[in-house]
Amino acid sequence: MKMGNQPFPLASREEHPEDTLIRLGTLEIGGRRPVVMAGPCSVEGRDALIDIALTLKHLGADVLRGGAFKPRSSPYSFQGLGEEGLKYLADARAITGMPVVSEVMEPQAVGLVAEYVDILQVGARSMQNYALLRAVGHSHRPVLLKRGFSNTVEEWLLAAEYILSAGNPNVILCERGIRTFETATRNTLDLNAVPVARYLSHLPVIVDPSHGTGYSRYVIPMARAAIAAGAHGLIVEVHPEPDKALSDGQQSLTPTEFRQMVSQIHKVHDAIEDFVVTSI
Amino acid sequence: MKMGNQPFPLASREEHPEDTLIRLGTLEIGGRRPVVMAGPCSVEGRDALIDIALTLKHLGADVLRGGAFKPRSSPYSFQGLGEEGLKYLADARAITGMPVVSEVMEPQAVGLVAEYVDILQVGARSMQNYALLRAVGHSHRPVLLKRGFSNTVEEWLLAAEYILSAGNPNVILCERGIRTFETATRNTLDLNAVPVARYLSHLPVIVDPSHGTGYSRYVIPMARAAIAAGAHGLIVEVHPEPDKALSDGQQSLTPTEFRQMVSQIHKVHDAIEDFVVTSI
Amino acid sequence: MKMGNQPFPLASREEHPEDTLIRLGTLEIGGRRPVVMAGPCSVEGRDALIDIALTLKHLGADVLRGGAFKPRSSPYSFQGLGEEGLKYLADARAITGMPVVSEVMEPQAVGLVAEYVDILQVGARSMQNYALLRAVGHSHRPVLLKRGFSNTVEEWLLAAEYILSAGNPNVILCERGIRTFETATRNTLDLNAVPVARYLSHLPVIVDPSHGTGYSRYVIPMARAAIAAGAHGLIVEVHPEPDKALSDGQQSLTPTEFRQMVSQIHKVHDAIEDFVVTSI
Amino acid sequence: MKMGNQPFPLASREEHPEDTLIRLGTLEIGGRRPVVMAGPCSVEGRDALIDIALTLKHLGADVLRGGAFKPRSSPYSFQGLGEEGLKYLADARAITGMPVVSEVMEPQAVGLVAEYVDILQVGARSMQNYALLRAVGHSHRPVLLKRGFSNTVEEWLLAAEYILSAGNPNVILCERGIRTFETATRNTLDLNAVPVARYLSHLPVIVDPSHGTGYSRYVIPMARAAIAAGAHGLIVEVHPEPDKALSDGQQSLTPTEFRQMVSQIHKVHDAIEDFVVTSI
Repeated sequence: MKMGNQPFPLASREEHPEDTLIRLGTLEIGGRRPVVMAGPCSVEGRDALIDIALTLKHLGADVLRGGAFKPRSSPYSFQGLGEEGLKYLADARAITGMPVVSEVMEPQAVGLVAEYVDILQVGARSMQNYALLRAVGHSHRPVLLKRGFSNTVEEWLLAAEYILSAGNPNVILCERGIRTFETATRNTLDLNAVPVARYLSHLPVIVDPSHGTGYSRYVIPMARAAIAAGAHGLIVEVHPEPDKALSDGQQSLTPTEFRQMVSQIHKVHDAIEDFVVTSI
Repeated sequence: MKMGNQPFPLASREEHPEDTLIRLGTLEIGGRRPVVMAGPCSVEGRDALIDIALTLKHLGADVLRGGAFKPRSSPYSFQGLGEEGLKYLADARAITGMPVVSEVMEPQAVGLVAEYVDILQVGARSMQNYALLRAVGHSHRPVLLKRGFSNTVEEWLLAAEYILSAGNPNVILCERGIRTFETATRNTLDLNAVPVARYLSHLPVIVDPSHGTGYSRYVIPMARAAIAAGAHGLIVEVHPEPDKALSDGQQSLTPTEFRQMVSQIHKVHDAIEDFVVTSI
Repeated sequence: MKMGNQPFPLASREEHPEDTLIRLGTLEIGGRRPVVMAGPCSVEGRDALIDIALTLKHLGADVLRGGAFKPRSSPYSFQGLGEEGLKYLADARAITGMPVVSEVMEPQAVGLVAEYVDILQVGARSMQNYALLRAVGHSHRPVLLKRGFSNTVEEWLLAAEYILSAGNPNVILCERGIRTFETATRNTLDLNAVPVARYLSHLPVIVDPSHGTGYSRYVIPMARAAIAAGAHGLIVEVHPEPDKALSDGQQSLTPTEFRQMVSQIHKVHDAIEDFVVTSI
Repeated sequence: MKMGNQPFPLASREEHPEDTLIRLGTLEIGGRRPVVMAGPCSVEGRDALIDIALTLKHLGADVLRGGAFKPRSSPYSFQGLGEEGLKYLADARAITGMPVVSEVMEPQAVGLVAEYVDILQVGARSMQNYALLRAVGHSHRPVLLKRGFSNTVEEWLLAAEYILSAGNPNVILCERGIRTFETATRNTLDLNAVPVARYLSHLPVIVDPSHGTGYSRYVIPMARAAIAAGAHGLIVEVHPEPDKALSDGQQSLTPTEFRQMVSQIHKVHDAIEDFVVTSI
């Protein structure tokens, strides 16, 4: 089970054969039913967020996603609404009852973000930000840990080990695409990571086909494939008018497409449910 | 639909909206029912081949695969049985009724291999062997064109264009894993290539999860995922005793695992059949 | 000069044609004479550090490097001596007169590290840690910004832009190897990045052949090549007894090898000095 | 010295400690003096070829390069002049006295190409075309073996082993860039491959900075770096009017730039000559 030289005893399935189940109210992440997290890339305004949240709840989303603090390659790009965005997310949760996930980018902000959201997201660029991993490890909130776009599965599990060893047992792994030479997709969504991570670890594994492919037309087939590969859920970007999104519109589903995706992944899940449990 | 600067008019879906359907007797490749190609990595002996072929036929395989000419990184590795191996494949076909696919590695050998097999395989290392592409383009046999392990989807479709423009319309695309930094799998099976190739082209697309992952324990989940992503079929390695295979034993399914795979992929297919047709 | 869609006006050579020159006492970084930074991977103890610092000073090093806070993939690996290590570095500077460079891993630690060191290093894993980039951007210390192991040159310059736009004009770019499929070296030192970064930007560019190759036997040839490509300097790991290093011994030069490297790179530099200035 | 599981006894330095020296008339490849191969990407016409050949000879080129059979991703791109191009190359050799190198793309063409040229080039796309490797292995002409753009150094040496084991001892290794995520260069010229290949093998190693970088402005610095890393020579594209080249104009040097390159690499070589011999 060891691939490199570095053990990850707390994340390892060898030492913890049972799947980890993370509970948020009545929601279970890591159980039999696939979890769907959805929302806009960035929180852009209170009314728009509440509108899309109500729609997504109605269409079968379990968790609302939305970026308040946005990691951007350029200092001149839109950096998100910050705490104001977190407040809108909290408002959307109060109205819809859906738990909320949002990214935290620095150790000092963990307390603030944890006040407003139910799941703390550590982004791909932060996967080896060890101070941040320790800080979310000291939080009582579950952590969604995105795989770095050039990190091995072993490094991903070692990053999870930082969080687990700081005292937080509730880590959700999220595959979101790696960097390769291919240019037809924004990244190369690496679905191999799903069975590999489930073989090596007991932690739940979800998949982000929006960032993973970068084009909305590939999101639904790759979402189906993720569930068929054994993923415990998905996180996708949805925007009422993708053309007008402040960021990542090209990869956002419309609400109609989202409804199709939910329907299809549940059919895939129903078809393979018994196999996944026994074959991994 | 154009990604780079180089058009592929014959391979392009834009110019040929209907899916290409390739018929081998009663078998259809590229139609609604997923096709399963299976067999040993290398043809190792006549009796063993016929035994496994009978087993595979019984368990639901549609096409028998087996290497007679083997591309090997080292000149000192087992290079395959050559024409003798082709004869065994033809014998297995005669006995089981299954069509046969095997690799051809050089232009001059196309005539010989085409005498014995039903589908000519162009391997990943040969994807840009233009003399070979032209030679199989002049053959009347369908061609299974594996994607090079560091080629873009656009280059893959341009390689298909070489075959199509030489007069052979029957090209089956096969994704088999790309090279990345990840070491937990032998290659990184790139399932994004399935919806991308189906979006850009009308040619059938199948997937090789055996070479794509390199470990038998990941073959079944990735086979399910391939079908869920919209693949028209699979090609997998099966060996009665993987530990004793002359090549690639680690990635070969046992017959029991193969039966499980067939059952599972058909359930996935049944669940999503209607969506694939309409959503791509 | 624009490669993607994101401008980096402060880092861009187009807008600032003159090379940036960073002065530390009498030392110039970014000028004609190549700068050599050297030292152990990790600070392991006060006496050992002072010993190697004296040796390196004698052998031609300009700046002493040494890790006090170490980014490690595993939470169970040696994490460095922390502030104690910084004190030893400051002691070594007091004794040798050499300026000191060491890594800072989180925004809150910038003040502490800046008290002890002359150049703040932002490591490869932190290249897109935007809070850290802003924090070092508010410091008065020059910053050595390592390229992330899967970041494009454009993203690297955008990371520099974060620092520059926060008010700190003294950024030194450092190429240290990227991730590829190759396994004969630890990383693939990308010397193309030297002329590309010098073409696109006015900032000094140095190269780390120790991390870039991972094997001491390749460090000297790649150090020569870096200078020939136009690099303004090098940062290398040196250990009196590489076999006994707590980290990265395999890639550390002995003092004897270091002396050879210094001699050789100065000969290369003397040979090409006039060309570099005029040809880039 | 073994990196993977596959030995390459004939190519290995362990078994053949002395550098291989290949002689073409009075020219030595693999000796102390760096060899410069230069010419247009494609042979475009007789007069133009002879003109540029005379110029290159005058400016210090040792070998004339020029493509007669061109490997092109698209069947619709210019495929080269074929045998007519070979004749022009032979004419240029007769007039200038320079030996000639040109690519051969298929086993059956080896005899034809070997009639006209002094060095047979196996292109990057053909590095694992085993039938071709065996065919050039049976030729009496030296072979320039380009590294595949996603092949490891070990696979490259195994490809050389195919040629050596077929009876041809005169193989020149040529690094020409690998595929990575970086987009600022056409490929990522991997100069690490120079010391790695020289450490593992006794064969001469040359570098192609034209294909390796894809932009003429980076060719000279990377040519200098290649020599500094220990390369035995270079192969570069030169065109009298790069803007009008039928292929690859963007990466072609003008004759003036070529003269600068030759001058600079000889200065680098003179500076480091003694070190390379003793340090690798």
